[in-house]
Amino acid sequence: MTLEDLSFYVAMAGTVAFASSAVLSVAERKVDLFAAIVLGTITAVGGGTVRDIILDVPVFWANDVTYIWVSVAASVATFVAYRFFEKQFIRSLFLYVDAFAVAMFAVQASAKVWDLGFGLPVAPVILGVITAIGGGLIRDVLAQRQTLLMSRELYAVPVLIGCILYTLMLAYMPQHRLVGSVLCLVLIFGIRAAAIHWNLQVPEWAMMGAKRR
Amino acid sequence: MTLEDLSFYVAMAGTVAFASSAVLSVAERKVDLFAAIVLGTITAVGGGTVRDIILDVPVFWANDVTYIWVSVAASVATFVAYRFFEKQFIRSLFLYVDAFAVAMFAVQASAKVWDLGFGLPVAPVILGVITAIGGGLIRDVLAQRQTLLMSRELYAVPVLIGCILYTLMLAYMPQHRLVGSVLCLVLIFGIRAAAIHWNLQVPEWAMMGAKRR
Amino acid sequence: MTLEDLSFYVAMAGTVAFASSAVLSVAERKVDLFAAIVLGTITAVGGGTVRDIILDVPVFWANDVTYIWVSVAASVATFVAYRFFEKQFIRSLFLYVDAFAVAMFAVQASAKVWDLGFGLPVAPVILGVITAIGGGLIRDVLAQRQTLLMSRELYAVPVLIGCILYTLMLAYMPQHRLVGSVLCLVLIFGIRAAAIHWNLQVPEWAMMGAKRR
Repeated sequence: MTLEDLSFYVAMAGTVAFASSAVLSVAERKVDLFAAIVLGTITAVGGGTVRDIILDVPVFWANDVTYIWVSVAASVATFVAYRFFEKQFIRSLFLYVDAFAVAMFAVQASAKVWDLGFGLPVAPVILGVITAIGGGLIRDVLAQRQTLLMSRELYAVPVLIGCILYTLMLAYMPQHRLVGSVLCLVLIFGIRAAAIHWNLQVPEWAMMGAKRR
Repeated sequence: MTLEDLSFYVAMAGTVAFASSAVLSVAERKVDLFAAIVLGTITAVGGGTVRDIILDVPVFWANDVTYIWVSVAASVATFVAYRFFEKQFIRSLFLYVDAFAVAMFAVQASAKVWDLGFGLPVAPVILGVITAIGGGLIRDVLAQRQTLLMSRELYAVPVLIGCILYTLMLAYMPQHRLVGSVLCLVLIFGIRAAAIHWNLQVPEWAMMGAKRR
Repeated sequence: MTLEDLSFYVAMAGTVAFASSAVLSVAERKVDLFAAIVLGTITAVGGGTVRDIILDVPVFWANDVTYIWVSVAASVATFVAYRFFEKQFIRSLFLYVDAFAVAMFAVQASAKVWDLGFGLPVAPVILGVITAIGGGLIRDVLAQRQTLLMSRELYAVPVLIGCILYTLMLAYMPQHRLVGSVLCLVLIFGIRAAAIHWNLQVPEWAMMGAKRR
């Protein structure tokens, strides 16, 4: 198995985690199968789609429709067998797979933007974050849930930190690109996994409302 | 009158129905004329705009601004004469015109995507659905109404079924394209019209919430 | 200082006003620094980004990332020193700078679209309005606030009037373009400033809800 194969399988696992978590997250609301597929698929491919539109390159799933098939299949499976997917250990597994996928998609996106020389040095960070969290934001808006921007979950911040570090590495240590990719991926995943495991939240003093009084 | 003329007039009637229904749907909320025009026009052209952006082709209304004029005119007329448009028989008429327009826009979009060879075989279905319901989704998000993804209305499902069948036809029976177009259009319109007439909803057992207990 | 320099400094002041007002507008909600930066930056550059995507030209901030740096800096400053930014006279100052920026961005956008010959004659008006208010709409959707389309604030209407007049001027008096730009900018700013100063709202009779009974 080559590195590319590995990367592909991880991307597919991440797509499953994105779509499946999305369907689980609207399970308490009454949704039909169609809505489950739409919300699952948008969550899985929405961020990368917005990235590619801003970059003005062909959207990634038009070149490889496997992403769509996998998203749809994961959404349907979660809808049909939600009792299974709802089990605590499956949910936990998916949270960690989701964290890994977020980290990988963000790092990959930053690399893609950097290689295109698009809007340097800020666009690799911005589009890395958009790729990782954009699909979830669209899902929450369509499902009228509170978006993660308004929550205290430690979700987007590790992505931001990782993408900044990765872009700095690409700028100042381009010869260590592979090492940098792995390090930033591990960093994002590590912070996110810690946040899941210890239920870490954005601390009170870092909130704007808290500073008001 | 050629087939193209006919298609143009139906498209314009559909645009009127989209814009006008949109303005009626926010009538219970206090909106001013500006908001009515924006919401009406977005509903009428928003889905096709998102489709063309994803396809990376010029947005359709930039090539034929008639769509915009008709949307604006229909929005203004509905705002000014909403008492007339509110009448039951007008609302019903618009529901059916809307159903026909949804069917036609979806089939046309699938054909456009298929001819571009974009993201086959899934993109014709995805972008057919986006063209048909995308504008309404944006309207509901901007007007903070429940999106149709969260409702039990049988609206998007017929579109999905029709686009899947149409894409299968294009793939396996390309020589019957015209017949296929008409059949899928009639199918989508038929299911949707039945849903309107008999007030059909997505059945309870097909909802995710219902399956929970 | 050339006219171009002046225009650049005004654009930067406008960017600061957009980002800073956005952060202030979500201050009553608990948001963390990350969300403040995202919402501030989206408000500042979101409208122009949507415009450029519809025009299918490179997004403006990819060519000049100063817009991003200024948005992020203004968002951070407002988050950290919100007590200062919250002061009445600062808020008022920002309201007027925001009004000026809205006017300038709208007129600039209309000119850009006109020069591209894109979707004439309606697109310069539509994309002028989108440039001016699009970022704020995205912010409100992500922060789950009432969008300005649903409020009675006299915000988008002056932009619409100004863009229509400006486009008419470009069409019928192209030789007076510079004068026209200044006049329309002053007109939009004037109406908006009057609305701020006298707390003008969209009159009751122009609302759809009011007309119902």
